[in-house]
Amino acid sequence: MQYELTEEFLEKVKDAIDAQNDAFLKSSFDEMYAEDILPILYELDSHRQKHILNLLDSETVGRIITNIDKDTRLQLFKEFEPKEIARFINEIYSDDAADILNTLPIKSREEIIAHMEDKEMAGHVSELLRYDDDCAGGLMAKELIIARVDWNVKQTIEEIRRQAENVEKLYTIYVVDQNDVLLGRLSLKKIILANDKTKISELYEDDIHSVETYMDSQEVGELMQKYDLESIPVVNVQGKLVGRITIDDAVDVLKESAAEDINAMTGISVAVEEDDTVWKLSRARLPWLIIGMFGGLLGATFMGLFEPQLILVPAMAFFIPLITATGGNVGVQSSSLIVQSLANNDGFEESNLKRLWRVSLVALLNGFVICSIVFVFVMVIGHPPKLGLVVASALFCVVLLASILGTITPLILDKIGINPALASGPFITTANDLLGLAVYFGVAHLLYLS
Amino acid sequence: MQYELTEEFLEKVKDAIDAQNDAFLKSSFDEMYAEDILPILYELDSHRQKHILNLLDSETVGRIITNIDKDTRLQLFKEFEPKEIARFINEIYSDDAADILNTLPIKSREEIIAHMEDKEMAGHVSELLRYDDDCAGGLMAKELIIARVDWNVKQTIEEIRRQAENVEKLYTIYVVDQNDVLLGRLSLKKIILANDKTKISELYEDDIHSVETYMDSQEVGELMQKYDLESIPVVNVQGKLVGRITIDDAVDVLKESAAEDINAMTGISVAVEEDDTVWKLSRARLPWLIIGMFGGLLGATFMGLFEPQLILVPAMAFFIPLITATGGNVGVQSSSLIVQSLANNDGFEESNLKRLWRVSLVALLNGFVICSIVFVFVMVIGHPPKLGLVVASALFCVVLLASILGTITPLILDKIGINPALASGPFITTANDLLGLAVYFGVAHLLYLS
Repeated sequence: MQYELTEEFLEKVKDAIDAQNDAFLKSSFDEMYAEDILPILYELDSHRQKHILNLLDSETVGRIITNIDKDTRLQLFKEFEPKEIARFINEIYSDDAADILNTLPIKSREEIIAHMEDKEMAGHVSELLRYDDDCAGGLMAKELIIARVDWNVKQTIEEIRRQAENVEKLYTIYVVDQNDVLLGRLSLKKIILANDKTKISELYEDDIHSVETYMDSQEVGELMQKYDLESIPVVNVQGKLVGRITIDDAVDVLKESAAEDINAMTGISVAVEEDDTVWKLSRARLPWLIIGMFGGLLGATFMGLFEPQLILVPAMAFFIPLITATGGNVGVQSSSLIVQSLANNDGFEESNLKRLWRVSLVALLNGFVICSIVFVFVMVIGHPPKLGLVVASALFCVVLLASILGTITPLILDKIGINPALASGPFITTANDLLGLAVYFGVAHLLYLS
Repeated sequence: MQYELTEEFLEKVKDAIDAQNDAFLKSSFDEMYAEDILPILYELDSHRQKHILNLLDSETVGRIITNIDKDTRLQLFKEFEPKEIARFINEIYSDDAADILNTLPIKSREEIIAHMEDKEMAGHVSELLRYDDDCAGGLMAKELIIARVDWNVKQTIEEIRRQAENVEKLYTIYVVDQNDVLLGRLSLKKIILANDKTKISELYEDDIHSVETYMDSQEVGELMQKYDLESIPVVNVQGKLVGRITIDDAVDVLKESAAEDINAMTGISVAVEEDDTVWKLSRARLPWLIIGMFGGLLGATFMGLFEPQLILVPAMAFFIPLITATGGNVGVQSSSLIVQSLANNDGFEESNLKRLWRVSLVALLNGFVICSIVFVFVMVIGHPPKLGLVVASALFCVVLLASILGTITPLILDKIGINPALASGPFITTANDLLGLAVYFGVAHLLYLS
């Protein structure tokens, strides 16, 4: 069912475009989904891309321009007149249309809207452009099936027939009063099972979830996921129904935020993809590397203070990577557990004291196991027991402190409104490196060199 | 719209249960969603939980036992007779029912199925129990609305009315032939817009996605997300329609696999939550810590070979954390970019050589920036230029090698069927630590001490 893409097919497509062999192209693409045509388009220049789009039906073109990568779309749109773009935009949902227009310069945006034949759609899109990307208003679409509470089933079915022209996928029928204030929803099932004369007021369900236009996108996504909603109505501050958000948009929001978390954890400062330009990739990665570098230089300066001790016991240097790496691993584990727990938080929050208590118990247990092995090892390879004691007890403190730091940092970040996933990133690793060094040389100073 | 949970309310609930004040409980829970009752249940013992469930309507109880944590459910079920559980199970979708029964011992599973009043549902559940959790068959539900291709619209509407009893949410109508072989789907919109006499064969869309029962769950989820499908039909090897998977189940699969990736990246070996027992958390975290520890010990042994050099230039030790941390950061960044790119892979794969080439360019660029800063710093704080040269050139090699290692490792893991996210975890950090040390002392040996 899915199309397997081959280099051979791609070559045939290129040749067919250059030879104007539209019959071959048409028959090839006719049976393909927009999502499968996309990867082929990515391999072509915008001139050839245009040639293919001109052969496709408008619905497929609509899906393609909705799903295509932003930069490619901007390039491609240069090949078309505003009027042609308006025709594509007419074919897609109002929310996707607004998202696309949002990426264009204001001038072309206005031109395209002015050329749209469906004036109702043009109005919808203009309205949606007013909302920020990261709120419910920016996610919603205007395509809705609405029934008035004072209608009966027959009137409603007639109205559904009329409205269904604009709505390809029928989700739910929303019920409103005379002032368009959202009252509830009606399942198609109830409509189908009910008598023609039955009043909507007797059928509809008033106990429904809705969100206001200004609600944060991520919260909308989490809400929809929590209550397993396929769509959710959006109301304005007066309670009037203004749009609906469907699960596919909510899924995209959740996916994006997961990708952001992973970037935060791995120290990549802006959203990049592996196939972005070298320059963009480099800039996205450099900031955290430089922070890590300064951490390392700070550590070097700190150790400089202990140069006399290092000259006395050079073997101390051997265990520096063990100490810093273990601190880093423990810190990342702890913070990622807290981050996940913050993300899934529903219900009673645990008190932070209880959290710390449990984290400390885990650290004591794991610290004990690791330190025992390390202590034995240090002696087995012939170092004096005192060095084993220094390494093992420093390691024990590091495991405990890194656990606590890894637990507290995301909680604090979350409290002050910063993405807590940053706490599992290079920042915590750098902090733990420094902490580990301080503890190691501190313990050594106390136990060994005093 | 969402219920705010307070300690005060919880106390009131507990008191009401103990005082058998069912009127208060009923009125409190009546207006709450199952998802909001759950966190309250988690704070109660199973005896009190049972008291509340007995007061709720069966639909809410159905949603509660579907969404409740597995361990809590097992505990709770001990309070009920198989017959009572069968009544709850009757209220939920067949896929959720099978998932729940799958967590029970075979004996109670059979008892509950035997007590189910709806024999069709019992048959469905028994059938679903045959499938593995991680394939399409294990995700699908049996509730479907089916139309035969030789019916007309009127017959179909009558059939929808009959079948809709079992299907709360109406997704799509699936069209089959006389042998139940899936032919296509029909939107409700088309049914509503068409004439009563129109044949289904003229209306249905034959160009649809479907999956076979044995398809991997994650692939199903990715497919549904790629093509924005709300539901997908499942067929057996003969092409017969046997069930459907809805987007909410697919979202759960994708969410779980994202959590697994994060665990792999942070070195947590089994799925745990922050509020699991200390013992469970400790066991989940220990394996990777021990691997990291052995890495550290190996590093210590390796550095032991360079003891004479360290005695000569103790300042070399100062820059060990800088080298290992930078290697770790670069490696994690590189591998996470590859992991994300593997996950989003649609279309032409880039050749690995091209990947490595670009990664190396980025590494050269970033390596140059970092090493210049480090070189200046080392001299500014008063070390000899030769040490600065050793540190800077070792760092440069580490950045380059860690980038390449971070790129190759996930590609290899993916090739041999291991979750590539493991490559962003403690394993790569440990490997990079060792690599960093080897390079640092190697370069020092060449440039400085020879």
